[in-house]
Amino acid sequence: MENVITLAHGSGSIQTSELIDKIFKSNFDNPYLTADDAAVLPNDTGKTAMSTDGFIVSPYEFPGGNIGKLAVCGSVNDIACMGAKPKFMTCSYIIEEGFPVEELEKIAKSMGDTARKAGIQIVAGDTKVAGKGQVDKIFITTTAIGDIVEGVNTSGAFAKPGDKIIVTGDVGRHGCTILLARNEFNIDADITSDCAPLWNNIETVFNETKDIHVIRDATRGGVGTVLYEIAHQSNVGISLESDKIPVDPGVRGVCAMLGLEPLYLACEGRLVFFVPAEVADKVVDALRKCENSEKAAIIGEVTDENKGKVILNTAVGARTILSRPSGELLPRIC
Amino acid sequence: MENVITLAHGSGSIQTSELIDKIFKSNFDNPYLTADDAAVLPNDTGKTAMSTDGFIVSPYEFPGGNIGKLAVCGSVNDIACMGAKPKFMTCSYIIEEGFPVEELEKIAKSMGDTARKAGIQIVAGDTKVAGKGQVDKIFITTTAIGDIVEGVNTSGAFAKPGDKIIVTGDVGRHGCTILLARNEFNIDADITSDCAPLWNNIETVFNETKDIHVIRDATRGGVGTVLYEIAHQSNVGISLESDKIPVDPGVRGVCAMLGLEPLYLACEGRLVFFVPAEVADKVVDALRKCENSEKAAIIGEVTDENKGKVILNTAVGARTILSRPSGELLPRIC
Repeated sequence: MENVITLAHGSGSIQTSELIDKIFKSNFDNPYLTADDAAVLPNDTGKTAMSTDGFIVSPYEFPGGNIGKLAVCGSVNDIACMGAKPKFMTCSYIIEEGFPVEELEKIAKSMGDTARKAGIQIVAGDTKVAGKGQVDKIFITTTAIGDIVEGVNTSGAFAKPGDKIIVTGDVGRHGCTILLARNEFNIDADITSDCAPLWNNIETVFNETKDIHVIRDATRGGVGTVLYEIAHQSNVGISLESDKIPVDPGVRGVCAMLGLEPLYLACEGRLVFFVPAEVADKVVDALRKCENSEKAAIIGEVTDENKGKVILNTAVGARTILSRPSGELLPRIC
Repeated sequence: MENVITLAHGSGSIQTSELIDKIFKSNFDNPYLTADDAAVLPNDTGKTAMSTDGFIVSPYEFPGGNIGKLAVCGSVNDIACMGAKPKFMTCSYIIEEGFPVEELEKIAKSMGDTARKAGIQIVAGDTKVAGKGQVDKIFITTTAIGDIVEGVNTSGAFAKPGDKIIVTGDVGRHGCTILLARNEFNIDADITSDCAPLWNNIETVFNETKDIHVIRDATRGGVGTVLYEIAHQSNVGISLESDKIPVDPGVRGVCAMLGLEPLYLACEGRLVFFVPAEVADKVVDALRKCENSEKAAIIGEVTDENKGKVILNTAVGARTILSRPSGELLPRIC
């Protein structure tokens, strides 16, 4: 491991996992420390999910949202992925001296609106101000808790050979939006972030079946990174049909120009489900009736072979290994 | 209200309250949004306390602790003040590219050690890395939850005329330590931060009596700010005996040199209790038997007159109003 923190340590990549294992896991060791999106904690009558996320996205406002909306969606979706109905949230602000109060008000309004939409109540907060140049405009950390629906038991470690893999919509929109919002490439495209709270989508699926093995939101590192993580956690192979993966034409165009793989661009409103084959169609049908998952699709399945690998099958019959990016493609995306 | 965020908005002062009222309260409005150190939330069998705090202290290492120890103590003490036994914690790191991994390891070790001492388990986390110059070294946000002890009902709004006011030790040590650690004044003094987790102290008091009206930790803004907040929340007056307030001779010396009031310097290991007069001696005796509260003392009482004011009575019989500082005395103290 390197001696100093690099952008790669914050990318959600192999380097991030290494940092967590070597520095945090060993020092915080306890039976509830999570390797999933949220910790699963005992309460007096069942289980609670708890998750925290820091948001440092730059620019803090982008087509389709801002750092406030993102901060609510991020933590809501993390606990929702563990099967928890969002209940309470805290938020902590670190703001640069000189930040316009009007902008802060806009961000707070977004948070309030998104929280109400997500059915979560913001119950406590903290505000710190750092001097000019000591923080880049505004950072927000949110923490969410919620009770896990009875009978639900999901984890990145529960994928099984034969499971169908479902994605709830087109991939890579958030990452592509932030990339363009930075104006570094002089590309003009009408792309907005997919940022959205997703508990309603998950609850709709639970109303059909609770026999769901894995639910994950494909944020930092995109769907590709999430699939590799699950392949490792569950010690299985993953086989994808590349022509089944929904990609917005605008995103596809930008990716072609810049040589990027949409599967590795962040989403902030997309879920990946691993479900037994016999319930897959029912789950897709349910998702397609919900806002933000109208384009849900089965994109592949879990295999016993190629353990730890994600294989891409193209329409013309070629099979390739989805190559894993190393380092930080695009920092400060969320 | 000003148009831009100033350091004063992060000082825990009147400006901070104004910001919270105007920007956050109105947008997050819900019945559980707290004005105390932690939100009090219903669970299936009782009440849970939940609190979050962001830590941006500079320097991140100081005599008596570092940002990691501080981040654990801060949130533990906030829920403990609502009568909650610490249970689970999350932490979110925002780290500057180039930060030494060895330093991060030291901070994580401190957090693990302090969490074990405080009886809380760190169950989930998040790591973000910002580019060089986009964050000053390292910021940590922690969020703690715990179940409130049955029969306990404390709030800053529950102070009553006749209550005795107890402080658990000498005041202003943390603020003074950070001031000196910045080396801006060229003062050499042997002062260490009082930073400590305080649930044990509170639990010891509950073992004697649960008839406690207010518990607060005197962090940002010090004991003086906490007393003013309680005077307002409870609509009462506060009368202090200035010669009863414990102050370390080193802290007193530094304050005299720099013209500072120790009551307004931050503590990170001191509690303020408001208790009915008849249990005050019992509470002090219990506290004096605990680590970190050996010098607990009754420093004053709640009055029906002088509502919203803190009055200082000196040993020679003079009575003055404790003047309220405005703006930010010392930024990035916690």
